[in-house]
Amino acid sequence: MRRDELFGPLNDKSAKIMLLGSGELGKEIIIEAMRLGIETIAVDRYENAPGQQVAHRAYTGNMKDPLFLKGIVEKEKPDAIIPEIEAINLDVLFELEKCGFNVIPNAAATHAAMQRERIRELISKKAGVPTSKYLYADTLDELKDACEKLGYPCWVKAIMSSSGQGSMFVESEADIKKAFDNSRARARGSGERMIVEEHIPFDIEVTELAVRHYDGNGHIVTSFPKPVGHYQIDGDYHSSWQCAEVSESVEREIYRTAEKITSALGGVGLFGCELFVKDGKVYGNECSPRPHDTGMVTLATHQATLSECGLHVRAVCGLPVPSVKQSGFNVILPVKNGASHVILSPCEGSHPVMRNLWQALGNDVSFFAFGKPDAHFGRRMGLVVALDDDVGKAKVKAERAAHMIEMRTSQQGWAGQHDRKFHLL
Amino acid sequence: MRRDELFGPLNDKSAKIMLLGSGELGKEIIIEAMRLGIETIAVDRYENAPGQQVAHRAYTGNMKDPLFLKGIVEKEKPDAIIPEIEAINLDVLFELEKCGFNVIPNAAATHAAMQRERIRELISKKAGVPTSKYLYADTLDELKDACEKLGYPCWVKAIMSSSGQGSMFVESEADIKKAFDNSRARARGSGERMIVEEHIPFDIEVTELAVRHYDGNGHIVTSFPKPVGHYQIDGDYHSSWQCAEVSESVEREIYRTAEKITSALGGVGLFGCELFVKDGKVYGNECSPRPHDTGMVTLATHQATLSECGLHVRAVCGLPVPSVKQSGFNVILPVKNGASHVILSPCEGSHPVMRNLWQALGNDVSFFAFGKPDAHFGRRMGLVVALDDDVGKAKVKAERAAHMIEMRTSQQGWAGQHDRKFHLL
Repeated sequence: MRRDELFGPLNDKSAKIMLLGSGELGKEIIIEAMRLGIETIAVDRYENAPGQQVAHRAYTGNMKDPLFLKGIVEKEKPDAIIPEIEAINLDVLFELEKCGFNVIPNAAATHAAMQRERIRELISKKAGVPTSKYLYADTLDELKDACEKLGYPCWVKAIMSSSGQGSMFVESEADIKKAFDNSRARARGSGERMIVEEHIPFDIEVTELAVRHYDGNGHIVTSFPKPVGHYQIDGDYHSSWQCAEVSESVEREIYRTAEKITSALGGVGLFGCELFVKDGKVYGNECSPRPHDTGMVTLATHQATLSECGLHVRAVCGLPVPSVKQSGFNVILPVKNGASHVILSPCEGSHPVMRNLWQALGNDVSFFAFGKPDAHFGRRMGLVVALDDDVGKAKVKAERAAHMIEMRTSQQGWAGQHDRKFHLL
Repeated sequence: MRRDELFGPLNDKSAKIMLLGSGELGKEIIIEAMRLGIETIAVDRYENAPGQQVAHRAYTGNMKDPLFLKGIVEKEKPDAIIPEIEAINLDVLFELEKCGFNVIPNAAATHAAMQRERIRELISKKAGVPTSKYLYADTLDELKDACEKLGYPCWVKAIMSSSGQGSMFVESEADIKKAFDNSRARARGSGERMIVEEHIPFDIEVTELAVRHYDGNGHIVTSFPKPVGHYQIDGDYHSSWQCAEVSESVEREIYRTAEKITSALGGVGLFGCELFVKDGKVYGNECSPRPHDTGMVTLATHQATLSECGLHVRAVCGLPVPSVKQSGFNVILPVKNGASHVILSPCEGSHPVMRNLWQALGNDVSFFAFGKPDAHFGRRMGLVVALDDDVGKAKVKAERAAHMIEMRTSQQGWAGQHDRKFHLL
């Protein structure tokens, strides 16, 4: 609902949001809510998750457990329930929504987005957006069949997994068994099924951070930050930049495509629509009904308080989302172009330490250390964003800073981090 | 000390900062520390102060009380003690410093800055910076004498007060009694003395947010954000903007002057040097050894994580402060020009509510609601920052948004706020 009044936090009329999952994105959502005087509750499966450290109140528990989830919602009675992760009891979300709780963007979208089969069907059938060809497989034989039909190379992905885990690029029949085992091993929950996707050798992969929000008349409209380009390593986001290098006509097609997908999902909030661009044509891939990893570049490219996380809070709370009109679209302009680069843990253990900060941060980069209490190999522990009118220069600057940082834990030392692989230098 | 390693928060080797006073500036300092994975402790005299809402831990009590202050410092053993307000027991600060605690920038600077006589003497005598002429007075007769000597108009200020309280512009002998009573009534602590200052009809009043920080070799150097222009109403900051409209030669003189003042104060951190410019000459006025109210414009003009509060955290924790060389100075460039405008309470009471958010926030302004639990007449409750290459347009945009916002409390209604005075429109 359009909201024209805000009570301060910590009284019985405060606007109150509850984050289900409180990682690095949840932390920034909470920071932006705090800056608006909105009361914040952070829930995660482990103590001292990034968002829990900044929120007014925190709860730790298993969000798959109906008693735990219902208990905290009924105790706190939040104005908005914001799922940040996928390991949430969906039946409870639907039930809470039926009882009048405001699930962001809604329980059905959360349900659709947590599983590759459902979101693919929604993008392709309900939204009518072109996708790469795809087939499903439940057994090794079905998988072989599907790969043969779609041709090599192709992608094999667990239908339920997050952040690229359980995804594999299959170059020939020889890779199928490994892809099958990997998908089974990394799948989350009961989703044993896998999806096989045709490989489109795309020109660029973009995320469109479309925001569905109220306008001055109380109608839901869509506004569009400039497309974010990104690349992945091992199926997980490694660097992203804004603005993506696309032509004006492709940009408009990206907005049109994102509008179709997000309308099919419904509700209000910011969505991360993952799209491919090939020969001027835009394909739908996935869509998260919440701020997106690759969108963290907007923490520095967008105006303060209006990053993807800030925009999400504005939309969720019914506050205005400012934009300018460009070719008939509501476009949210960055203040300056820039690039983000992840800082991944090269080690395992507790009490992670980062070093080499002077080499890394000597340039004017924005540096975020998420403050996670434990490191795992490949876990995202921090982020660097560099700004530059020339996006190519920003990419190099961000990569240089991020790759300079070394990490150790109480269990594992600094060894073996001197041979830094740079992708752009 | 230059710091090249950072432990995450909440373990026994974490970098830990303690804010003594946790208002809107403390809140942003804590947010930036949180983004670096630094552990944060917020102390204030009342519960749920803005900074306490985001910090890892909070304490509430009287910082004038030696037992309370010593107790929390000895319990928490912070790596840096950051005074944000002036109502702190100075004897305890000196004692803690002697015991090896790191007071920012140091106890002597905190002592000097909390009283107009001491900071004026430091600026004028120790730093050798020109100031307006000034005299002191303890009685009404001495005050009359001083005003006669300096000539009318002049300023009468309590030597101990904050944010312009207890200051009065004296146009003729007829105002002296009122100024005397006002100074006595609004003075803080035991400071009954007042300072009489010559009125310089300055061309512009600026704040130079000089940062003293370690360089790569472990030496303390000074870096300079672009000067911030501002104006006051009733002795309190009302709007500020960056960059201030000064010539290049004045800009260099501002840096030189700020360097003299901050070197005289010593230590590391960001300082708010209040300076006057008249006919190309720069005069020292006051200096806060911490982020400055008027510097809040940098929350949006500077790159994310490098606002005045972010720079303070970087300097305090021994992390790099990036800059570029301009005419021999380390200059910290804004990403874009902009203007801030305060949102002041027009009413008294608890549970403050803001409305008219749609009119106020429809444009692309950054909006900060500090989340203070109580409102007092004239209390700063929020802030708007607008960006525009043309600083004049940014000022108008920020004022328009800030003045649109109406407030009420549980005790007082909306009435009487429709007649909005605009200063620029």
